[in-house]
Amino acid sequence: MPVITEFLHVKTEGNTDIINITNAIEAIIKKHEIKEGMMAVSVIGSTASITNIEYEPGLLLDFPEMLEKIAPSNIVYNHDKKWHDANGYAHLRASLLGNSKNYGIYNNELQIGMWQQIILVDFDNKPRVRKVVLQVVM
Amino acid sequence: MPVITEFLHVKTEGNTDIINITNAIEAIIKKHEIKEGMMAVSVIGSTASITNIEYEPGLLLDFPEMLEKIAPSNIVYNHDKKWHDANGYAHLRASLLGNSKNYGIYNNELQIGMWQQIILVDFDNKPRVRKVVLQVVM
Amino acid sequence: MPVITEFLHVKTEGNTDIINITNAIEAIIKKHEIKEGMMAVSVIGSTASITNIEYEPGLLLDFPEMLEKIAPSNIVYNHDKKWHDANGYAHLRASLLGNSKNYGIYNNELQIGMWQQIILVDFDNKPRVRKVVLQVVM
Repeated sequence: MPVITEFLHVKTEGNTDIINITNAIEAIIKKHEIKEGMMAVSVIGSTASITNIEYEPGLLLDFPEMLEKIAPSNIVYNHDKKWHDANGYAHLRASLLGNSKNYGIYNNELQIGMWQQIILVDFDNKPRVRKVVLQVVM
Repeated sequence: MPVITEFLHVKTEGNTDIINITNAIEAIIKKHEIKEGMMAVSVIGSTASITNIEYEPGLLLDFPEMLEKIAPSNIVYNHDKKWHDANGYAHLRASLLGNSKNYGIYNNELQIGMWQQIILVDFDNKPRVRKVVLQVVM
Repeated sequence: MPVITEFLHVKTEGNTDIINITNAIEAIIKKHEIKEGMMAVSVIGSTASITNIEYEPGLLLDFPEMLEKIAPSNIVYNHDKKWHDANGYAHLRASLLGNSKNYGIYNNELQIGMWQQIILVDFDNKPRVRKVVLQVVM
C-alpha cells in the first residue's frame, strides 16, 4: 500500500478561526520517514477550508477582513432563512476557498516557503473539533 | 498500476449551474472496491470548477449571488471585447474557484461530512456537457 | 517509487504577473513517458498561486482587475503596518487562490481543455524566481 492516511483532530473557536497545522503535518512526515511523496490535506465538513498564509498577527486580521467583504457575516442569506443556523456566510467562504490543498515532500522536507504555513480555517459560528485528512503517496 | 482514472460526462445548463456529483463519485469508489486511497477530482475546461457545498436550495441561490458580486455577469470584460462570446465573467469565476479538489477514501468511505457534497459548477453562458476526471491512487 | 518530483524555476515580474507553465509541464510528461498519472502542481511561497485560465490578452487584464477589487493593492493592511513590505494584498490573494491544483494524465495526455492553460500567478510586489513543484503518481 503506497498510500498513508492520518487524521488530525483540531479544536477551533469557529468564527473564521485560523489554526496553524504545519507542525502537526511535519511531525507525521517525520514519523513515517517520508523521503519523497505527494501529499493532500483536506478538511471534512462544509464550513471549513485548508489554505496557506504567512502566519503572523497582521494577516490573521487582514484575511478575515477580506472575507468579511466577500461574504459578510451580518447578511441573512437564503440558507439562514431556511435552516435558522445563521452560518450561511460560513458555507459561502468554505465553498470559495475549498476543502483541500497539495504539498510536495522531497529530501524528507515539506516543500513550503519559510514564511508559508498550512492553515485550517473554521468559518462556522461556534467552536468545533475539525477532522483533517492527511494523505501521502510515497 | 496504482492509479485508477474514470471520467464523468455531466450535462449542465450553464449560467453557474451547480451539479451534485457526490453519488456518481461514490458509485465509482464502490465499483473499484477502494478501501483506502487519495482521490483528485478535476474538470476539463476554463469556465467550470469543482468545489464543495451543502447542497440545499438556500445555498444554491446564495453561492451564485456571491459570485455575481465578485465577477458580475453584466460587465463587458476585455475578454468579451476581443472574442464576443460574452462569457468573461465565467472565465474569471473558474480561475478563482479552481479546477480541482482532493478527497480521502478510508475504510471504503469517501471522507466528507454529512452536509458536504462535491459539486461541479458550470459558469459558461450556455448548456454544456462537462468532462470530469476522477483519479484515485490506492 | 511511483512518485516523480520535478521542479520548475520561473522568473516573474511580480505585481500579479501571470505566467503560462503548460508547455513546461507537458515537456516533463513527455520526458518521463507518463501514460497515466495523477499530477499535483504547487508553488512554494506565501505570495503566489497556481490556477488555470484561457491565456489570452483580454483575461490577462480582467483577472488582475477582479483581484484588485477583492484585495486592493493601495490599502495599507495590518501586515504592512507591522512588516513594512507593502505586500499585504499579495498575501491575501495567494491565500484566496491557493498554492496548488490537480490535473489528470491519461493516454499520454494532460487532461485539460483546448482553451485551458495552467498558470503561475506571482502577486508579490517585485520580480522573483519562483519554484514550482510538479509531482506525478504513475
